[in-house]
Amino acid sequence: MNDEYQNRLNTLQDYLKEQNIDVAMVTSPANVFYYTGFNSDPHERFMALIVDNRTQEFTLFVPALDEELAASESYVKTIIPISDEEIPFSKLKNKLGENIVCFGLEMKAISMFQHNNLLSVFPKTSYEDIQHFITVQRMKKSKSEVEYLRNAVDIIERVLAEGIKKVEIGMTELELTAELEYLMRKLGADGPSFSTIVLSGEKAALPHGVPGNRKFKKGDFLLIDMGVIKDGYCSDTTRTFIVGEATDKQKEIYDIVLQANEAGINSVKTGVPIKTFDIAARNVIDEHGYGDYFNNRVGHGLGIEVHEAPSIHENNHQIAEKGLMFTIEPGIYIPEYGGVRIEDEVYINEEGEVEVLTSFPKKLQLV
Amino acid sequence: MNDEYQNRLNTLQDYLKEQNIDVAMVTSPANVFYYTGFNSDPHERFMALIVDNRTQEFTLFVPALDEELAASESYVKTIIPISDEEIPFSKLKNKLGENIVCFGLEMKAISMFQHNNLLSVFPKTSYEDIQHFITVQRMKKSKSEVEYLRNAVDIIERVLAEGIKKVEIGMTELELTAELEYLMRKLGADGPSFSTIVLSGEKAALPHGVPGNRKFKKGDFLLIDMGVIKDGYCSDTTRTFIVGEATDKQKEIYDIVLQANEAGINSVKTGVPIKTFDIAARNVIDEHGYGDYFNNRVGHGLGIEVHEAPSIHENNHQIAEKGLMFTIEPGIYIPEYGGVRIEDEVYINEEGEVEVLTSFPKKLQLV
Repeated sequence: MNDEYQNRLNTLQDYLKEQNIDVAMVTSPANVFYYTGFNSDPHERFMALIVDNRTQEFTLFVPALDEELAASESYVKTIIPISDEEIPFSKLKNKLGENIVCFGLEMKAISMFQHNNLLSVFPKTSYEDIQHFITVQRMKKSKSEVEYLRNAVDIIERVLAEGIKKVEIGMTELELTAELEYLMRKLGADGPSFSTIVLSGEKAALPHGVPGNRKFKKGDFLLIDMGVIKDGYCSDTTRTFIVGEATDKQKEIYDIVLQANEAGINSVKTGVPIKTFDIAARNVIDEHGYGDYFNNRVGHGLGIEVHEAPSIHENNHQIAEKGLMFTIEPGIYIPEYGGVRIEDEVYINEEGEVEVLTSFPKKLQLV
Repeated sequence: MNDEYQNRLNTLQDYLKEQNIDVAMVTSPANVFYYTGFNSDPHERFMALIVDNRTQEFTLFVPALDEELAASESYVKTIIPISDEEIPFSKLKNKLGENIVCFGLEMKAISMFQHNNLLSVFPKTSYEDIQHFITVQRMKKSKSEVEYLRNAVDIIERVLAEGIKKVEIGMTELELTAELEYLMRKLGADGPSFSTIVLSGEKAALPHGVPGNRKFKKGDFLLIDMGVIKDGYCSDTTRTFIVGEATDKQKEIYDIVLQANEAGINSVKTGVPIKTFDIAARNVIDEHGYGDYFNNRVGHGLGIEVHEAPSIHENNHQIAEKGLMFTIEPGIYIPEYGGVRIEDEVYINEEGEVEVLTSFPKKLQLV
């Protein structure tokens, strides 16, 4: 991986040079991981990768208590620890001096509080956005990244296959959640990539509902949306089942969502606007008269973060390219009744071919 | 709880009035939960509680897919959904008009990106910080909050008691982590409050290490630092065990950390600077010659977030008051050798008495 980190940093350096940015400060933990391999959530503490384009130096500022871990995991080996009683921005100034004309920042990661602190130590500096550049850089997945993502998908599929064997009438959403998250760890995941969603019956109508004490009943929808993080990369998969026996209406809704999912996936290719994929899936649902029950975008990019670029929505005019990895996850959500979502992960590979990473069966399954 | 949300909002409104702030925008999910009871992570989507002090109106902007959930959970009932293809800042302007003289923001939650967007729709408005006020408001825990926190502590203690029964030679850190997180769910937690830390042997020297495939061996340190979220409130507890048999040096280190933990707790009272608690614990470790092996603050506040105000470090001159809830967690971390941390949760109640919420035994335990 060391070559890969160096390449990523070089690409960033070239951009900084081109934009006349003297120093870049990268603070989003996901971006720090992307450039250094050090994967750490500093919570409210200060962590930043500094790319000094005047000297070609890389420096990683980390909370003192993470120094040892950073030293062993980070590709960037110049590490400056900051202890809890120190002021990070003073240390930054000591390291960098005052003569920075232009500072590059991730505008979505830097808070007004941090910006004000930067202004107080570097008052004469201008601040430019490097967020968009990094987002675009990360959007194109490398071969090794795709292998990590594939691995995260494989784990979640095994979790799902094992997990649904445990479903029984009278079990609660939370009990099944416990089983699923246990399986994630047992099968090698570093943890869930987001809060596991297990929703039954009418609760399946909530796209972001939270598992509770509702017990599974015969005839329930059972919607499971979950993913794992493994080696820093995320998976995110949804399948919807029916407990016991399905009504004709349930089968109809399921079938429409499945058609929408397939239409979305079949529309994926390079050279067309990304909105095409949303519209292809949405049209199927609209045509069947359920358009009012599908109110969110059809998918999102994923990688180091479970939601990243590109956003697959009907107003995204960006042109699809090789290297993109994203979900296709149409759904129909009928309040007080229930819902169905079927979510797959799709990758446009280096040859421009579409690979569906998810292989879990999509035919309606009773559990 | 409705009275409580109303009181919290009234307190905020009084502050806004006093500071001549026309409109406050609260976007940190933890703060939105604090004022409304709606507990949701919108990820990259826009969510904000708007307190309009010109009209005394409260409005909650949520991602469209969370509208139903917000309507049922939020105390603030005027809800404006934003779908994925809409631009939140335009909707904000439509709702609020252009004539805002002073806008209140959480400076640590608002990114430069959001600030630039606000500037583009409200170019003539000044922006004031409301972060500090909210932080101080949240720092003092109400009776109901303490009950939630107590409940989260009770769950994690039962998890620990059950969990250590499963420890055996040859088990890996990750396997024990899976068991512990399964127990969290089984015992009613909504999930871990942070990434569960299980570290063995020399890895116990890493204050923020990550569980891996290292197998437990006789004579290992076994450090378990974990917590749960239950009903929106967090616990955070650490105990260190020895697998099988302890050496004299291990016993010595354990004993010093235990003395430091007790000295820290015994120093807690109102009316003195918060740094006192850090120094009391730190002195014990210093006096025994291990000062170089304890490099972080002795504790942190917790509540809706697992790390919140106050920070218990040696430069915090803030005076301790009734209502504070925080951890005391000294440790000795010797690289390549191992480490010990003992962490309790401490509350200064409404009578100014100190309550230790954690009751799990602290005497050295072999597992």
